[in-house]
Amino acid sequence: MLTRYFHTFSDSSYSPFPCREGGRGVRFYLEFESRVANISILPKMKKIIIGVMGPGSGATSTDLKNAYKLGQLIAQESWVLLTGGRNMGVMDAASRGAKSVNGLTIGILPGDNLDGMSEAVDIPIVTNMGNSRNNINVLSSDVVIACGMGVGTASEVALAIKNNKRVILLSSNSESQAFFVSLSPETVFVVDSPESAIEVLKNWV
Amino acid sequence: MLTRYFHTFSDSSYSPFPCREGGRGVRFYLEFESRVANISILPKMKKIIIGVMGPGSGATSTDLKNAYKLGQLIAQESWVLLTGGRNMGVMDAASRGAKSVNGLTIGILPGDNLDGMSEAVDIPIVTNMGNSRNNINVLSSDVVIACGMGVGTASEVALAIKNNKRVILLSSNSESQAFFVSLSPETVFVVDSPESAIEVLKNWV
Amino acid sequence: MLTRYFHTFSDSSYSPFPCREGGRGVRFYLEFESRVANISILPKMKKIIIGVMGPGSGATSTDLKNAYKLGQLIAQESWVLLTGGRNMGVMDAASRGAKSVNGLTIGILPGDNLDGMSEAVDIPIVTNMGNSRNNINVLSSDVVIACGMGVGTASEVALAIKNNKRVILLSSNSESQAFFVSLSPETVFVVDSPESAIEVLKNWV
Amino acid sequence: MLTRYFHTFSDSSYSPFPCREGGRGVRFYLEFESRVANISILPKMKKIIIGVMGPGSGATSTDLKNAYKLGQLIAQESWVLLTGGRNMGVMDAASRGAKSVNGLTIGILPGDNLDGMSEAVDIPIVTNMGNSRNNINVLSSDVVIACGMGVGTASEVALAIKNNKRVILLSSNSESQAFFVSLSPETVFVVDSPESAIEVLKNWV
Repeated sequence: MLTRYFHTFSDSSYSPFPCREGGRGVRFYLEFESRVANISILPKMKKIIIGVMGPGSGATSTDLKNAYKLGQLIAQESWVLLTGGRNMGVMDAASRGAKSVNGLTIGILPGDNLDGMSEAVDIPIVTNMGNSRNNINVLSSDVVIACGMGVGTASEVALAIKNNKRVILLSSNSESQAFFVSLSPETVFVVDSPESAIEVLKNWV
Repeated sequence: MLTRYFHTFSDSSYSPFPCREGGRGVRFYLEFESRVANISILPKMKKIIIGVMGPGSGATSTDLKNAYKLGQLIAQESWVLLTGGRNMGVMDAASRGAKSVNGLTIGILPGDNLDGMSEAVDIPIVTNMGNSRNNINVLSSDVVIACGMGVGTASEVALAIKNNKRVILLSSNSESQAFFVSLSPETVFVVDSPESAIEVLKNWV
Repeated sequence: MLTRYFHTFSDSSYSPFPCREGGRGVRFYLEFESRVANISILPKMKKIIIGVMGPGSGATSTDLKNAYKLGQLIAQESWVLLTGGRNMGVMDAASRGAKSVNGLTIGILPGDNLDGMSEAVDIPIVTNMGNSRNNINVLSSDVVIACGMGVGTASEVALAIKNNKRVILLSSNSESQAFFVSLSPETVFVVDSPESAIEVLKNWV
Repeated sequence: MLTRYFHTFSDSSYSPFPCREGGRGVRFYLEFESRVANISILPKMKKIIIGVMGPGSGATSTDLKNAYKLGQLIAQESWVLLTGGRNMGVMDAASRGAKSVNGLTIGILPGDNLDGMSEAVDIPIVTNMGNSRNNINVLSSDVVIACGMGVGTASEVALAIKNNKRVILLSSNSESQAFFVSLSPETVFVVDSPESAIEVLKNWV
């Protein structure tokens, strides 16, 4: 079933910047283009930011192992890792993976202070917004990877699609794959390993 | 398939205040209890607020008809209707239905002013939070009804479950039913008509 | 000193819709105009909402007395009262005043549930945004009245000015009057009684 | 007049962690202590983040010069700079100053995309919250420096005090100094140069 959703760089019909509803995809593409065009004149400093979302207390051991590996691979590409910042589950494991290879980690925290923050977060953004911060998580990520699935993660995947971000689903169950791919077949991608997620990402960023 | 998910008041195993993860369901129940107990001493003014969520521009004609009817039925119970407040789709139709029988309507707007507000909104709450306002929509509703399905609605259903709110799905497709019921079988209910939604609501509020 | 800031309807230079930075004041005026022009065709339902902001635990007895009276007077004009919704200080006193004459009260709550809500709130909006909800308080109010002064109130007055809302300062000290009037002399008004605040409001809404 | 508010490290009564209302100041101190104590066992990665707030389009040439210098000095201490992220005024100047010496810069953006971002921002946090993001700005900063004054800056200073953050006012006018020092004499500090601001900061972080 995976092959139905898995878009690879060898796919001849692959479009690096799919455009949903005409507008934003095109602008996104132009921004990337102009960044390259202008780079000798005025380099933009913006780093590539990859968001890894996933369950906290409900994460499985597979989710944790995948998240740690994702964090490592993202950092090795010199991308910045963004998570929900808490000291549990996928957020913590991905951040620890990134730090194990000296990556840079951002944590978008739900509370009004640093309580419960993962020790592997370099830059905590303290929102005091609870689950409303989920929208910030996805808006601030160039691409969103959902590692495992839970209700919080489901809200993030839905918000990512709503904001026209591309989403990669890793170790998600069949119900969630069927649901999210039905919502947005062109921007939701299903992969079966952290390495595959990175391969997909490399075509975009 | 609906009967598998449809909990009615005649269901002998029906629990009016299902408790997820022990804590908040119980507290919610106690709050309701104390409200009744204290009513002769110090009446709380809080009105019952029913949130109706659903697609904007992507709403089907069935969604719109159901939303209008839901608005009417909610207002006839003297409950307050809460929507995302915009002048399109399910938000607008539900608000118009409620106003057609002199109900009170709240609209939680995404922008920083009244542009694009449904004319059937009495009380606009201007958030300037875009889709982050979806969390406010569900937190402010005693129960959430999803009328149709789209990406924004999906985020609201997920956030409602996350916040331990009960959710009623109306005219949703099979993928969304399967997904959300798998996420939280005890707090997600599937119905097939506005009238059934009201019957379910009457057991709770 | 008050006469320097106190703009009354008899002031010949008084402009009912002062325009800051060209744009929004004019648009606001046109919206009001078009509402009147269209009223026989399609009445907008939106109610007039007056926000009363002020200290919680730090409120003085004068602040509380003024807030209660403001709530009464606002409700007697059939306007809706909006506050921060908590069961203390100016928020609670204003809401109780409005309910004493059967007004309608909205409370924009900082937490993720109804804990700590004033019993005089009809419609709680549950934001889970802490002090970030202060921006919602002022955006959702047609006019903001600051009754007393504290750090939270100061943030609301500043955000109200930023969002081009008119602000009335009641029982504020000389430092706050001097500061906020210096920030925006054309949209900040100083009054010395709840009755004066209502007189000023009547010229606008 | 400055000497009345200017707390320097040579001030014998100087307390590095002033405690407002008993609770949070003490906890903050203990967190710092425990971080030092634990550093050989499990180093926390969190970087020191200094927020520089100030006017956008209304910034004076003095504000801009001070902001650029602040950015440089902050980066030279290996602290991270946090601003509102836009390509104008104090936000832009401070970010450019930090990048001129290879600092790391965070921008908390008000919109839902990167439009209008300063080119000197490394890590944009995309909030889609408009001025509500001001609360995130101050919550995410270990200390807040206001460089110049405007209505947005005033809201940030008030929110910083509300959240028990220490605030340094630079090149502010006498009305704003008098007002904010009256609100919180123990956590608001007035300085007259970027270098003085850094001297004060060094005693805290």
